[in-house]
Amino acid sequence: LPQDSPKPSKVQELSVYEMNEKDRGSPAYLKLSGKTTKSLGDLVPFSNKLYTGDLQKRIGITSGLCVLIQSLPENKGDRYEAIYSFYFGDYGHISVQGAYLTYQDTFLAITGGSGIFEGVQGQVKLHQIVFPYKLFYTFYLKGIADLPKELTGKAVTPSPSVEPSPAAKAAQPHATIPNFTN
Amino acid sequence: LPQDSPKPSKVQELSVYEMNEKDRGSPAYLKLSGKTTKSLGDLVPFSNKLYTGDLQKRIGITSGLCVLIQSLPENKGDRYEAIYSFYFGDYGHISVQGAYLTYQDTFLAITGGSGIFEGVQGQVKLHQIVFPYKLFYTFYLKGIADLPKELTGKAVTPSPSVEPSPAAKAAQPHATIPNFTN
Amino acid sequence: LPQDSPKPSKVQELSVYEMNEKDRGSPAYLKLSGKTTKSLGDLVPFSNKLYTGDLQKRIGITSGLCVLIQSLPENKGDRYEAIYSFYFGDYGHISVQGAYLTYQDTFLAITGGSGIFEGVQGQVKLHQIVFPYKLFYTFYLKGIADLPKELTGKAVTPSPSVEPSPAAKAAQPHATIPNFTN
Repeated sequence: LPQDSPKPSKVQELSVYEMNEKDRGSPAYLKLSGKTTKSLGDLVPFSNKLYTGDLQKRIGITSGLCVLIQSLPENKGDRYEAIYSFYFGDYGHISVQGAYLTYQDTFLAITGGSGIFEGVQGQVKLHQIVFPYKLFYTFYLKGIADLPKELTGKAVTPSPSVEPSPAAKAAQPHATIPNFTN
Repeated sequence: LPQDSPKPSKVQELSVYEMNEKDRGSPAYLKLSGKTTKSLGDLVPFSNKLYTGDLQKRIGITSGLCVLIQSLPENKGDRYEAIYSFYFGDYGHISVQGAYLTYQDTFLAITGGSGIFEGVQGQVKLHQIVFPYKLFYTFYLKGIADLPKELTGKAVTPSPSVEPSPAAKAAQPHATIPNFTN
Repeated sequence: LPQDSPKPSKVQELSVYEMNEKDRGSPAYLKLSGKTTKSLGDLVPFSNKLYTGDLQKRIGITSGLCVLIQSLPENKGDRYEAIYSFYFGDYGHISVQGAYLTYQDTFLAITGGSGIFEGVQGQVKLHQIVFPYKLFYTFYLKGIADLPKELTGKAVTPSPSVEPSPAAKAAQPHATIPNFTN
């Protein structure tokens, strides 16, 4: 399975959309701080759907945990420490960690991957479109082979009205990647 | 401690057994979802024992957190996001993240390491033998020096009846690695 | 933003102080184990302040989660699995994972980073000075460009009496890094 080979040093961009279609019981906001406002101690496990940047294919899911760090009324938002993964069906997964600010774009660290993403390094830009239902990510990936074509179609420009194609939303066979994660 | 040196690009395999001997109060299933079935919101901190693949030496422990993502009755199992580390006594540790499916093998990302595993990259195959008491892992490690001989003995083929040698189970000095993690 | 370039292989040291000034509601000790003693199942989200090793500048914050693994009365302390990040304002962040032992120094894995720390590898030494209020870290960083001078001033030798400069503690503009994380 793994191979002894020099690591490619070029940067590859990969765009994906994360959508909360309210059908996965996510997020689970665990009010563990015992405070009435959002406070350190609250934990937020979550899992949403993933689509290709061109919105033509269902990829899989995100899954992980947000740790509420601070509520920031002056920013009308919150700071979370986010620890999660992006699942790409048979292609494997990418794990990330960093800040999720509900009021501002951030860059998270890519901490590793499996499958075609084994040994990946780099960072990912998190761009929130509609809190907390639509997010757009741009991965900057190093150390892996060329990405499959179906993942690198031209991304739809993020806007509040973007939606996956009906076929992708319905996870029709021609509109999913191989063995998409569900 | 650290050295300026070119990174080895070869892949090294490392096999370990994880055993839950029911003496560590693990796992702690935290039913935080408030639902009667396993649901997003449940969290599962855990820590089990680690043995070499040849079952002749106690290595240390695993420790970390599983985040329940979905219960999948059609697969008679569950999906977790697993974030944990493998401790190897004086040799250091390896951290990993990825999917733990109770009904199917998975590959997790290696996210980093310490000691002899500093700067490690790669992935690890999780193979469950007896849920949730016996698991067999095969690490595919890149970027580190040759592993110590005592970690790379010939692995016992996984089966439900495998057990560590009595000396390893008793953590007798000749049947542990240096300062094994306990 | 990212560049195609060969990875520097030299090791750079970076020292920082983490201080709990009791003004962030941290840590949040979540007694979820249901046991009277510290036990597996307890979770500890936290966020503290970060200063440069020379204590002349406020850098930002730490944020993340400790998972209580074991209470070790024979060591008069506890073992945690620690999963957190160090935020350096406009410079980006570093994510880490590994053991936090309240009675002994440890090395944690660097799992990734953003900004100037994109693609970083290595490990970090955690040295506790005053539990749980003052910690000193030495990062051993690989794979990134030369660090900015303001981060690499001569570190003050750790001791229980160390304090950030009054200007850094007050986060005066000349005593912070650009857009320090707060």
